[in-house]
Amino acid sequence: MDLGEFQIPGNSDPNQKTSHLSLDIGGSLIKLVYFSTNDGDDDDELGGSGKESVGVSNSNRSFPVLKGRLHFSKFETRKINDCLDFIQTKRLHIGGCQRLGALPIEKTIIKATGGGAYKYADLFKEKLGICLDKEDEMDCLVAGANFLLKAVHQEAFTYLDGKKEFVQIDHNDLYPYLLVNIGSGVSMIKVEGDGKFERVSGTNVGGGTFWGLGRLLTKCQSFDELLELSHQGNNRVIDMLVGDIYGGTDYSKVGLSSTTIASSFGKAISDKKELQDYRPEDIARSLLRMISNNIGQIAYLNALRFGLKRIFFGGFFIRGHAYTMDTIAVAVDFWSKGEAKAMFLRHEGFLGALGAFMSYEKHGLDDSMIHHLTQKFPMSSLVGDKICSPLNGELNDNESIECSVYAS
Amino acid sequence: MDLGEFQIPGNSDPNQKTSHLSLDIGGSLIKLVYFSTNDGDDDDELGGSGKESVGVSNSNRSFPVLKGRLHFSKFETRKINDCLDFIQTKRLHIGGCQRLGALPIEKTIIKATGGGAYKYADLFKEKLGICLDKEDEMDCLVAGANFLLKAVHQEAFTYLDGKKEFVQIDHNDLYPYLLVNIGSGVSMIKVEGDGKFERVSGTNVGGGTFWGLGRLLTKCQSFDELLELSHQGNNRVIDMLVGDIYGGTDYSKVGLSSTTIASSFGKAISDKKELQDYRPEDIARSLLRMISNNIGQIAYLNALRFGLKRIFFGGFFIRGHAYTMDTIAVAVDFWSKGEAKAMFLRHEGFLGALGAFMSYEKHGLDDSMIHHLTQKFPMSSLVGDKICSPLNGELNDNESIECSVYAS
Repeated sequence: MDLGEFQIPGNSDPNQKTSHLSLDIGGSLIKLVYFSTNDGDDDDELGGSGKESVGVSNSNRSFPVLKGRLHFSKFETRKINDCLDFIQTKRLHIGGCQRLGALPIEKTIIKATGGGAYKYADLFKEKLGICLDKEDEMDCLVAGANFLLKAVHQEAFTYLDGKKEFVQIDHNDLYPYLLVNIGSGVSMIKVEGDGKFERVSGTNVGGGTFWGLGRLLTKCQSFDELLELSHQGNNRVIDMLVGDIYGGTDYSKVGLSSTTIASSFGKAISDKKELQDYRPEDIARSLLRMISNNIGQIAYLNALRFGLKRIFFGGFFIRGHAYTMDTIAVAVDFWSKGEAKAMFLRHEGFLGALGAFMSYEKHGLDDSMIHHLTQKFPMSSLVGDKICSPLNGELNDNESIECSVYAS
Repeated sequence: MDLGEFQIPGNSDPNQKTSHLSLDIGGSLIKLVYFSTNDGDDDDELGGSGKESVGVSNSNRSFPVLKGRLHFSKFETRKINDCLDFIQTKRLHIGGCQRLGALPIEKTIIKATGGGAYKYADLFKEKLGICLDKEDEMDCLVAGANFLLKAVHQEAFTYLDGKKEFVQIDHNDLYPYLLVNIGSGVSMIKVEGDGKFERVSGTNVGGGTFWGLGRLLTKCQSFDELLELSHQGNNRVIDMLVGDIYGGTDYSKVGLSSTTIASSFGKAISDKKELQDYRPEDIARSLLRMISNNIGQIAYLNALRFGLKRIFFGGFFIRGHAYTMDTIAVAVDFWSKGEAKAMFLRHEGFLGALGAFMSYEKHGLDDSMIHHLTQKFPMSSLVGDKICSPLNGELNDNESIECSVYAS
């Protein structure tokens, strides 16, 4: 079996080839994960060290069959052509290992998940000549989260009072947990093991709501701009606080302080102001707080329902944004009276794409293989390397994880 | 004991007098409940039959001490002066029974609840010379709901597929239930008996959010106008549906049909439209649906948490609006997989004010008295009377319930 080419065993067509690229095409964003061996020019622009060589071995658990880097990238779904260009320019759809083999390519298959894998299948076929092999969205989110939590050092962290603290997860004590993926909408999944999960809830008040309402209210041009704005805003200008109703005092009998938000955007009902009289910064802040708090509350109620102590938040809504994480963490803390803790993932936005990537191995080799795509070194040992140390900052676009693929 | 004057026993000041008016001053609305005996001119403009006489008896359970009508009225909190004028013009603060007695009034006390009872206490003192006697908001909501559910015929109903069905509640099987009061913000209260309750949850995404965001987005001038607009709108213009992400197909594996809202306002992220390019009707509808659905979901999760089968929704957000009730009912049905049912109350907006009214009796006589303010006739027997028959339509402002006060 030539693992270097990631051929799919059991596939009767010897000319069918799979790529080292996977996609998660959501309502707002397309997320890409791709693996590159470090001997080629693919890496030059991608932050890889470029010093690793490809190692191939035959079914030996001790030696990696591939060494290289997992890269992460994203595009707006409405700018899908930019994504197609990126894939074509980097030749990601042809397969990262084409140098090793020279089989004529008839059908290239790319693992893809998210609703766009259905919606844009024809476009990918037409523009790049590739087939999107659709993987279930929830399967992928869970596989991606499980991979990150097991294989990547310092992946999960808590965030409270502006302080980020990494949480070392014991692999034997990972399950069950609640995975909350905040994309355009929100999915909440009870995860009990590899491939063992149930989508138990969700909410339609998600990242798409933040951005959609935010665009209408502030004329912002991008999600990131809106997040940036919110950073400088003051939600008390528009939100009706308990103190606004109670004349400045708390409603302490039921545990509501005067600064608790009684009604998001509630102050706008009595002010004589029009939309243009409010600062976009304040609107963005109220909106972010409303949505983050709501997600945190619904997540906690679902965790409680199933007795899940750990809640991991992922999805591209968060983007490592301090205020978003702080609000979600505070909401979980408030509603659980300190009993539950919100946890975040460094690769939060790429769960689905990573899960789709895992599914090459799942189908190509065997299920246990998915454990054997592992990070080569703990991230913390790579200080000084181009890989962003989690202790030094947030994950950036095009950042990579150094890892090895082992045969099972 | 002169019940006709509702004197407060135990009060050392014989000149202190209480009114037959009670108030619930919320962040958006002031709700008034007042009792009028039917022999005076108070009733002429208030929809009372004007034919009942005042009956007074001494501590006899069989005969009413007072017969008359409970009236309901509301004002916007920002127009509090209109409310003060109304009270003054109708002399509601002087007491409905002043004709029976002629004690000199030194201090008039009005039972009031809601945050505004604190915030506007000085204003009432200054403008009308009356003291607001503050009653706890949650106490009042629960007392009001319990009174309505026990004493008023055809108070509770379900609403599904455009069909309203009255539910006859067995008084012995009323508890426990979840009371969801949707005002500017939302309170969720687990009720286990008279005065036995706990505020278990709530959300800051409530009526104030609907109106506040709605005002900013549509330039509507009133809550009712916004509701009316929503009636003619189509939320699919702005909401991102599952089918929008999946290219028109369902995501049936997890039970999401193509028409399920994946992300409220999510379509606004990819459209090149500005705010003014959307119809206010469509915006109002998306907003109403987002908020109603969210409240329904959080309510269900809380009912589930405490094993409560009945969820009663009250508060002025609903206003007997078909689409609001339908969305809340559908949300509860969807999230509970048909196991829980949303129920609504005909006097939904007046729970707090009614509860404050009940507290006159609570303090004035004894706790059991609150059961003895009862509707004189079942509503359904009053067809043809000016009291709106619940079978014929919604509760209107200034509508009244005919009732009697019994001594215990």
